[in-house]
Amino acid sequence: MKKKENKGFFISLEGGEGCGKSTQLNLLAEALRTMFPGREIIATRSPGGTAVAEKIRSVLKEKTEDENIIPATELLLFGACHAQMVQNLIDPAMERGAILITDRFYDSTIVYQGYARGLDRAKIDWINDFACNGTKPDLTLLLDLSPEQGSARTHARAAVENDRFDSETEAFHQKIRAGFLDLAKAEPERFAIVDATGSIDEVHSAIMEVIHERLA
Amino acid sequence: MKKKENKGFFISLEGGEGCGKSTQLNLLAEALRTMFPGREIIATRSPGGTAVAEKIRSVLKEKTEDENIIPATELLLFGACHAQMVQNLIDPAMERGAILITDRFYDSTIVYQGYARGLDRAKIDWINDFACNGTKPDLTLLLDLSPEQGSARTHARAAVENDRFDSETEAFHQKIRAGFLDLAKAEPERFAIVDATGSIDEVHSAIMEVIHERLA
Repeated sequence: MKKKENKGFFISLEGGEGCGKSTQLNLLAEALRTMFPGREIIATRSPGGTAVAEKIRSVLKEKTEDENIIPATELLLFGACHAQMVQNLIDPAMERGAILITDRFYDSTIVYQGYARGLDRAKIDWINDFACNGTKPDLTLLLDLSPEQGSARTHARAAVENDRFDSETEAFHQKIRAGFLDLAKAEPERFAIVDATGSIDEVHSAIMEVIHERLA
Repeated sequence: MKKKENKGFFISLEGGEGCGKSTQLNLLAEALRTMFPGREIIATRSPGGTAVAEKIRSVLKEKTEDENIIPATELLLFGACHAQMVQNLIDPAMERGAILITDRFYDSTIVYQGYARGLDRAKIDWINDFACNGTKPDLTLLLDLSPEQGSARTHARAAVENDRFDSETEAFHQKIRAGFLDLAKAEPERFAIVDATGSIDEVHSAIMEVIHERLA
């Protein structure tokens, strides 16, 4: 599907568990506010980002007693979140010329539902295309980290309660990493791989190098 | 997609607002329990029917302040409900040899999202196929009523609060009726059109005539 043209700039942050996406997203938003005073900077997340999409996120994230969400349902719920977020948040923001950064977007769906859970890639692509309707990130920052390092960080976050996606097996996280690297290889003009093994400041500096290069 | 074979019998009740589906569903379930003592009879509804699908139903039905659910999101949420309901409720029930009756199923999605809201039929069919994975009703009872009569009944239900779908315009309800009749014409072996203008007892009798014929 042809990418829409607009005045804004759309950045997604991707990566496995414990890669530091949320922390880096906040630091990046702050840095962009300093770099571009007066320009609208939006920090959001997927699934979520609008009132309706956040309601759907709750269905995805909260355990339901005595019933698991099946993979097909999961995929359709992610699609529903994306459709709502694209039409009611991302597209209008791009029209206004904003810079929008999201913690995850459809690459996560391809990697988690496809590479890790084994759903058919063509079906995932169909649903992503239907939901996103030609809207795609201008830049995707992939925070790359080995599953061992990610897992160590996740376990250190004692205050954060584990949700359904954090309690997966080691092999699952290996597939996640390989999947993201595969997507990055397929679209090098959109993806920038950032080594996420360093300190928060080091990773932030690496991200800002990419930003200066791509958003100058 | 080829229909799955099994020991059960799957009935859907379809129709516009105020056609009496819920009342007739309960009467039909009671009658089936008398007709087939010892056989498992399940009465359910779509969207809904399982704990997860009921959560998704709430997102679809409850108004969200300051944000409407866009048609693409709506379609994907219905798909998510169907996927969950098929795998976790309908397919296991059919394997056990149960008779399952549902208040609405995917025909409603085609009619409401396609005929009435104008979403592309091929896309609706793709999502229904993906979600239902070959599971389709053995019998669909279409309770046919003019929108004027349906509307009169809906307004008489003073105790029932109107939800998003009940507050649509007259033209919308005309499209709904025409859509259902169109689907019934395309699949006469699955559909039975029941005149829903009579009294509760008269409509129930008409339904039981169909049941005796198709489920003998």
